[in-house]
Amino acid sequence: MSAVRPQAGVPTRLLLGSGPSIVPERVLEALAQPTIGHMDPAFAAIMGETIDLLREAFQTDNRATLPISGTGSAGMEALVANFVDPGDRVVCGVHGLFGERMADELARAGADVVRVEAQWGRAIDQERLIAAAADGLDAMVVVHGETSTGVAQPLDGLADACREQDALLLIDCVTSIGGHPLRIDEAGVDAAFAGTQKCLNCPPGLAPFTAGERALAKLERREQPGRSWYFDLSLVLGYWTPDENGGGGRSYHHTAPINMVYALREALRIAVGDEWLPSAWERHRRAHHALRDALGVLGCVRLAPDGEQLHPLLAVSPPEGVDEAAVRNALLLDHGIEISGGLGPLAGRLWRIGVMGAGARREPQQQLVGALCELLGAEPAEALAALDEGWRA
Amino acid sequence: MSAVRPQAGVPTRLLLGSGPSIVPERVLEALAQPTIGHMDPAFAAIMGETIDLLREAFQTDNRATLPISGTGSAGMEALVANFVDPGDRVVCGVHGLFGERMADELARAGADVVRVEAQWGRAIDQERLIAAAADGLDAMVVVHGETSTGVAQPLDGLADACREQDALLLIDCVTSIGGHPLRIDEAGVDAAFAGTQKCLNCPPGLAPFTAGERALAKLERREQPGRSWYFDLSLVLGYWTPDENGGGGRSYHHTAPINMVYALREALRIAVGDEWLPSAWERHRRAHHALRDALGVLGCVRLAPDGEQLHPLLAVSPPEGVDEAAVRNALLLDHGIEISGGLGPLAGRLWRIGVMGAGARREPQQQLVGALCELLGAEPAEALAALDEGWRA
Repeated sequence: MSAVRPQAGVPTRLLLGSGPSIVPERVLEALAQPTIGHMDPAFAAIMGETIDLLREAFQTDNRATLPISGTGSAGMEALVANFVDPGDRVVCGVHGLFGERMADELARAGADVVRVEAQWGRAIDQERLIAAAADGLDAMVVVHGETSTGVAQPLDGLADACREQDALLLIDCVTSIGGHPLRIDEAGVDAAFAGTQKCLNCPPGLAPFTAGERALAKLERREQPGRSWYFDLSLVLGYWTPDENGGGGRSYHHTAPINMVYALREALRIAVGDEWLPSAWERHRRAHHALRDALGVLGCVRLAPDGEQLHPLLAVSPPEGVDEAAVRNALLLDHGIEISGGLGPLAGRLWRIGVMGAGARREPQQQLVGALCELLGAEPAEALAALDEGWRA
Repeated sequence: MSAVRPQAGVPTRLLLGSGPSIVPERVLEALAQPTIGHMDPAFAAIMGETIDLLREAFQTDNRATLPISGTGSAGMEALVANFVDPGDRVVCGVHGLFGERMADELARAGADVVRVEAQWGRAIDQERLIAAAADGLDAMVVVHGETSTGVAQPLDGLADACREQDALLLIDCVTSIGGHPLRIDEAGVDAAFAGTQKCLNCPPGLAPFTAGERALAKLERREQPGRSWYFDLSLVLGYWTPDENGGGGRSYHHTAPINMVYALREALRIAVGDEWLPSAWERHRRAHHALRDALGVLGCVRLAPDGEQLHPLLAVSPPEGVDEAAVRNALLLDHGIEISGGLGPLAGRLWRIGVMGAGARREPQQQLVGALCELLGAEPAEALAALDEGWRA
């Protein structure tokens, strides 16, 4: 009954790494719908539904909500290109690879970057971010879901600290969107970017993006065009949301990645249409803890301490004495299951396991635990029982 | 037998506009293959084949040949972000909308832009570009295939003029790649970007890109990182072509748009694998002239004069007294055939018709001519005969 037939050279994998995640067949089928034109009224209707679903995923009413035409990292570049001007003082939280990247991106944009760091694997104490803001700032950027360490950064208090200084709060929620509690408007976030290939279970290629009125006002105050034409929201919005941006009809900017938008719409229909978002968050929480408990039986220890864990990404140390890369490769090549290794200073010391959307379910976790037990020479019964127990909790 | 079933909301269109173009079912099926990881060895093999096929399409041996993770316009941004430094004197040919965009992009990058213009609908006399170069320059940028007007820009003499000044020759071949004669190495082009959704018949979402050693040497001489992290070739190449860039293993930069790469590989297998590229160019030439002759019977006049036409895009004035937008909309909504209108100063005065890949064949052209005759109240026999005659010529 499957409409999607594997072609030579593309193996079937169970994607339980840091992303891309498991893509449901409905999404693959949507991706393969016939291409139509980017100015076709039928495509306009698809864009409109996609925007509505994205607003739900971000929990925002922002008119400027749309997918940027590039992967998650393109969302980072769009965020900085639109809302950070040369010379801006920007407080940047750095507690993993993606915070490091953000700091690099900010420096390239000519910002005066004030780094507030925490050890990789820990959240940043908000009081330290707030204290850095007290010295004056134009923007604060934090990584809400640090994919390199599996840490969720609390946002409490940050928006107030920014508003007191008329600064913007900007966040990376690539891995948290759809899987870890986050309400953009309630948190006072001024702009955010996300990824499609994590909890939304869509192939990579688009970056969900949202910006509120304070951020857009800063963009409008610019006296000369920003450094990027491709990511210039003042142009992109004329294509994506003409009615909410002065009307006058949709104007061509660049050719949208038509088929990727079909796929994102379908993925969002599943992620925030078929399931109530708070239920999805709760499912990710349970899935995270169940898998953590099961892997704990095998001797894996989670990097993030209790209370700082990012539900969609479980980062654990491999059991003592195990060649982590050898096990990871055997998982992929012998069992068809992908998990990810550590990055940067954590290379060789971490397994990063996605608990994302369709992967945040008992069955794929059972497959992973079973295969890991086989490779580690462990009896699976106890670990599987811990998994079941976790799901019942 | 079709594996691709239309879903609600996605109509079937015959895409004969300025792009996206007709996407063959083989390409849609490739797009819908199961997503795998961006570091999976099976994906590395797919990347390798894609690179080889792209080199064939560009007619280059450049090691730095790869698809940029964004649409064609992202290719433009990558070209400028990597090879134009602030303060560079850049000669920019402007003879249509895409030349205008390039000039805008260059100004945003801080270049000193020297515009060499021609009327929209004409090529730029190379002698004028060469004369502008004689005053000193760091780069020259020209649009090889001007999609807004259907004009092909000759490149003869430009590379020599650039090399004399140690400057780079950079081109936009979004619409010409695969459909209009172009040999990157033979023409002495230092770097170029293209689109997937024109003659390659792949959905939009990637920008084929190539850069030669002179361009890469300029990039290496940079003392500080460029303005763009996402498009920074010095990082992107470590992911796409590690073996040809010092080896040491593939390093993660951003998550490639996995499924789009599947689709591009399949599209290239058709465009430059199943058909010898010079044969494809010749087919586009014949298709262009056949359609020009058929539309000529209806009173349409090509904008580009003989010798300056871009084969993949036929831009014609609608017959005298015809409401071009009404006919174009009726073609789309009543006949399911998309053609494009004019842009900028040519809005309302032009039909732009794609002669691209699968669209550069007699059958879709017959459908278009038949439908146009019906809408214009013309007998189709003479126009269809002219089409057939053109294909026999």
